[in-house]
Amino acid sequence: MIEPKVLKGFRDSLPEQEIFRASAIRNLSTTFESFGFVPIDTPVLEYREVLLGKGGGETDKQVYAFKDHGGRDVAMRFDLTVPFARFMAAHVNELPLPFKRYHIDKVWRGENTQKGRYREFYQCDFDIVGIDHVSADFEILFLMYHALKGIGIPAFHIHLSHRGVFNAYLNTLSVSSLSTEILRIVDKLQKIGRDEVHHQLCGYVSDQQAEGILQFISAEGSAREVIEALKQICGGYQEDLERLEQLVSFAEEAGIDDILTINPSITRGLDYYTGVVYETFLDDLPGIGSVCSGGRYNDLASLYTKQHLPGVGSSIGLDRLTAAMEELGLVTLRSSSVDLLICCMDEKYIGAYQRLASKLRREGLNTEVYLSKRKLPQQFSYAEKRMIPLALLIGEDEWSSGSFTLKDLQNRSQYTAQDVPSLIKRCRTVLKEH
Amino acid sequence: MIEPKVLKGFRDSLPEQEIFRASAIRNLSTTFESFGFVPIDTPVLEYREVLLGKGGGETDKQVYAFKDHGGRDVAMRFDLTVPFARFMAAHVNELPLPFKRYHIDKVWRGENTQKGRYREFYQCDFDIVGIDHVSADFEILFLMYHALKGIGIPAFHIHLSHRGVFNAYLNTLSVSSLSTEILRIVDKLQKIGRDEVHHQLCGYVSDQQAEGILQFISAEGSAREVIEALKQICGGYQEDLERLEQLVSFAEEAGIDDILTINPSITRGLDYYTGVVYETFLDDLPGIGSVCSGGRYNDLASLYTKQHLPGVGSSIGLDRLTAAMEELGLVTLRSSSVDLLICCMDEKYIGAYQRLASKLRREGLNTEVYLSKRKLPQQFSYAEKRMIPLALLIGEDEWSSGSFTLKDLQNRSQYTAQDVPSLIKRCRTVLKEH
Repeated sequence: MIEPKVLKGFRDSLPEQEIFRASAIRNLSTTFESFGFVPIDTPVLEYREVLLGKGGGETDKQVYAFKDHGGRDVAMRFDLTVPFARFMAAHVNELPLPFKRYHIDKVWRGENTQKGRYREFYQCDFDIVGIDHVSADFEILFLMYHALKGIGIPAFHIHLSHRGVFNAYLNTLSVSSLSTEILRIVDKLQKIGRDEVHHQLCGYVSDQQAEGILQFISAEGSAREVIEALKQICGGYQEDLERLEQLVSFAEEAGIDDILTINPSITRGLDYYTGVVYETFLDDLPGIGSVCSGGRYNDLASLYTKQHLPGVGSSIGLDRLTAAMEELGLVTLRSSSVDLLICCMDEKYIGAYQRLASKLRREGLNTEVYLSKRKLPQQFSYAEKRMIPLALLIGEDEWSSGSFTLKDLQNRSQYTAQDVPSLIKRCRTVLKEH
Repeated sequence: MIEPKVLKGFRDSLPEQEIFRASAIRNLSTTFESFGFVPIDTPVLEYREVLLGKGGGETDKQVYAFKDHGGRDVAMRFDLTVPFARFMAAHVNELPLPFKRYHIDKVWRGENTQKGRYREFYQCDFDIVGIDHVSADFEILFLMYHALKGIGIPAFHIHLSHRGVFNAYLNTLSVSSLSTEILRIVDKLQKIGRDEVHHQLCGYVSDQQAEGILQFISAEGSAREVIEALKQICGGYQEDLERLEQLVSFAEEAGIDDILTINPSITRGLDYYTGVVYETFLDDLPGIGSVCSGGRYNDLASLYTKQHLPGVGSSIGLDRLTAAMEELGLVTLRSSSVDLLICCMDEKYIGAYQRLASKLRREGLNTEVYLSKRKLPQQFSYAEKRMIPLALLIGEDEWSSGSFTLKDLQNRSQYTAQDVPSLIKRCRTVLKEH
């Protein structure tokens, strides 16, 4: 006998979780497609060099890599960005630009497992590639808003800033050569606090410069107020600031400016980003961190092609978001999506039950047939475990008279229907009342 | 520069293919759920021993197996049946029985690549576990029918037979100890023909016994006629034959007996099956082989638990079926699901375009905004490449008057709408005409 255990950091998805996840993914896909974004897929296994490049960094140690049967060095994808870059380099001539894609699927990282962190998890990425314009920056922002609203997040704020504005400011301080170190410190503001940031900055810049940087990243107020403050701090006109201002104008016109926060402390560590950057925090659970982040990058696929492919994109942390929704009571887990159980009064009627079930399914009523003749309380108990709200009873007399008894399993009330159309009508009425 | 190539036997899925696949999967899921089947998921990586057992067979060589960072022997799943068995053993106490599940996802096998065979491919499995009754055998059959109809297969036949009936017949010939060898030969009837089967059988049984076996597996006619013929050959009453007959009765009552063929030559090689077995052939493309196969098994999870779990299930060969549908012209590949492109007349209106697009999306019209001011023929050409049927033009005058010009990109006819409600109405009319 072999123990039926799963690997550390991995887990099964039971129907309750999987029904919720499938519906969230369906929901997100519908939103993405309503904006004109198209789905793509890439292999789970790729050449190791394609995924990791020729060097070897911190990420590499977490990647599941091995030799395949043909002695090739292969690896499992650890994100959806690198395969997308490879995909664009391979197919750019077949695709109309700008290309808007989404991709929702699993990735794998053998990192140390902590609370709520798994080695197999979902990513949900959406990007616009082949255009460097604020109209695309705004479309990603607008889509972040609609995607989160669409899956039922009631209250959140999207924080944004612009890497170029910050870099330009560092330039006026003549410390732009230290921007990587400064960005890394500034990114920790929420975590370590203002004083510690000041202290760490002074390891690289003067006290006065550190004060300036802190003033910059602490600018607060409405979007327009922060932009005005940054203008003052930067000493006037600045191209990227104009672009940020234009983004705010679009948001105002489209009616989503109330959920925007210009937050100059957002830098998103990675060197990868070159323009606007986004993070999203839930109003009622800010402590879990950003649930949807991204930004503009200068060149997606430079590792694989000389073709310049600027882009902007964002990524929803589906597992973190799901956990948050459960904590906030926004999720009702269902163990099935069945509306109606046809009870089995005699197994000889199975063919007839299924024929009737087909009629109900065609009308959009999910209908399960109970498959063996058990005592009715046992059949009702099965229905309850599966959260099926209605049961249909058809005894010998009822078959001959063509009538049905419908039982509401929540309040145990019963209805009689004389034919299939009135049965369907009655089911719909009761389901609506629930 | 790294070459953006994929591994042999792997492939990218471009939007056209991925839109079709996603819609097929959505469609199948809807059918499964309408019957009360629930989705589950299991990890892609498992302990090697869990997937392959302690021995090492032919399959093993094809499995992607390696040592992970912790030195554990792990493997990527090569089907959805073995993980399901492990899943049931682990969770049987949390699940109501009978348990009806479906699972549609990728599996990996490093087999030699042939025409149309890939190392990464989809499986689509559905099973009922925890009940050994003809009512469950029939439900799987009925679901096979509805799943295939649901994704648009117009004409097919489900061939079935019963392993128990065949074994009972071999018993009357006193050759049941050779059943494995005989089954393997008989399974090749379509491929090698009657004479060769006879020849090979004679390596194990007498000429007369071989004749008897050939008579058994060649029985033809309506379902009732074949059952009658088998009754004659087997010499009367036989429990499993009664069960097959009951299955046919249910099919008659449910109205799907016209797509059933009792075909005693179907054995489905594997030792795994113990009862009814199914294979499905397309009327217009029988040569590609079975597109949906399965059967009853005696004990799903015996490798992991002492609990007896009889079941019945089937599996759709999604990649093969998709290829067949393309060959039969049943698939119209779309490069997007966008109904309407809002052309960009001036980038300053991007916020307003998106606000309008939101209104249209809410009404179920998938609406893309073109993101930069290009010449209109360029914007129309983008729309054509993405198969977007409608374009919306809003010039300076039209913004001030609040009117819209809608262009049908198929026949270049134009319409004017005075407000958003009449625009929506016009879009729906034109889309319906297409």
